[in-house]
Amino acid sequence: MGPRAVVLLSGGLDSATLLAIVRAQGYDCYALSFDYGQVHKVELRAAACVAEALGASEHRVMEIPIGALGGSALTDAALPVPDDGGGGIPVTYVPARNTVFLSLALAWAEVLGAEAIFIGVNAVDYSGYPDCRPEFVAAFQALAGLATKQGVEGSPVTIQAPLVNLTKAQIITRGAELDVDYASTVSCYRADEAGRACGRCDACRFRQQGFEQAALADPTRYQAGV
Amino acid sequence: MGPRAVVLLSGGLDSATLLAIVRAQGYDCYALSFDYGQVHKVELRAAACVAEALGASEHRVMEIPIGALGGSALTDAALPVPDDGGGGIPVTYVPARNTVFLSLALAWAEVLGAEAIFIGVNAVDYSGYPDCRPEFVAAFQALAGLATKQGVEGSPVTIQAPLVNLTKAQIITRGAELDVDYASTVSCYRADEAGRACGRCDACRFRQQGFEQAALADPTRYQAGV
Repeated sequence: MGPRAVVLLSGGLDSATLLAIVRAQGYDCYALSFDYGQVHKVELRAAACVAEALGASEHRVMEIPIGALGGSALTDAALPVPDDGGGGIPVTYVPARNTVFLSLALAWAEVLGAEAIFIGVNAVDYSGYPDCRPEFVAAFQALAGLATKQGVEGSPVTIQAPLVNLTKAQIITRGAELDVDYASTVSCYRADEAGRACGRCDACRFRQQGFEQAALADPTRYQAGV
Repeated sequence: MGPRAVVLLSGGLDSATLLAIVRAQGYDCYALSFDYGQVHKVELRAAACVAEALGASEHRVMEIPIGALGGSALTDAALPVPDDGGGGIPVTYVPARNTVFLSLALAWAEVLGAEAIFIGVNAVDYSGYPDCRPEFVAAFQALAGLATKQGVEGSPVTIQAPLVNLTKAQIITRGAELDVDYASTVSCYRADEAGRACGRCDACRFRQQGFEQAALADPTRYQAGV
């Protein structure tokens, strides 16, 4: 077994591809998901399937109380997810979400003695999410070096975001090469209980375009009438 | 009511003083404590008393799953807290604790529209804790500016650590001027269920020395025989 890595796994297309890439690099993978009060909780079931299928050594779901704070359409059922996030930072932005996710990954990585934390942020997702940008990842790397015993003792964990400059189509192409079963992933913000996608939200549209541009059949399961 | 601030409140001497200082500066204070699986959970009761006594507008206790990860004498009852932490990073270090605390404070601050987050780290506490140093606080400030909508839109929350360069005696002197009731605070890592201190762990010794050097009576309630 290779060196250990903590891999953030949402159950969506990007993080499933990420896990396949990290496994292919020979890492011993510890997959980490969060129950943060998201309305689309079905993604956690998808994450469990993906972790199992792609050979994670462990899959942990941490419960964290950021949904109760409100402020996002992803955690507040009363705030509808729009079809189009529009310009600027969309209403699906969850305050400080990736900072909270990475900080908990950092805690687990230190206890595991992991070499790296992998996060599946990418430039396409920066349809306005500040915490999906390369400069955010670099700032967290700088913090990790100062924040932990591991860092102070000279071997800080690295924060890696290998998808950050890829398009959706490139991500899908890479995942297909690694035999990722995209039918079991859920990207939709309005997925139903069976994990079927709405086909209309930002997340669905980016995903559909990705399959089109990659010239691959879209295996996504859609809700009736989509 | 002044601008809003999130104030990290453990229930110990430092954070109680911090809350008094922030209130005296005119902030509308939102006190934040964490149930992170600490063995010395009595500090949460102390935090509630302190928040009430010092006029916080709200006191929230977030439950977070870092204790279950292990790796620290503060969260694992099987790992005893030593009388003397010794050189290097002590066994009471909790992996990435202040990073996790600040990231959740950042989420709350953004939802509240708070101007500042206050954390009571200080140099004396850096008896080896990497995440109590000024450079850690500065790195988190840099991250916060990039991580959030608030930051991207030009008014990042500031991360303030006004105790960072004070000695324990200076902290106590300042708190006494602001009428902080130190009898209701709990610093001890091995406090009993009534909040009485062991008098021998690092946290107790730093506190005792602080009252001595400040030439003030120590109101700490100690366990029988101490």
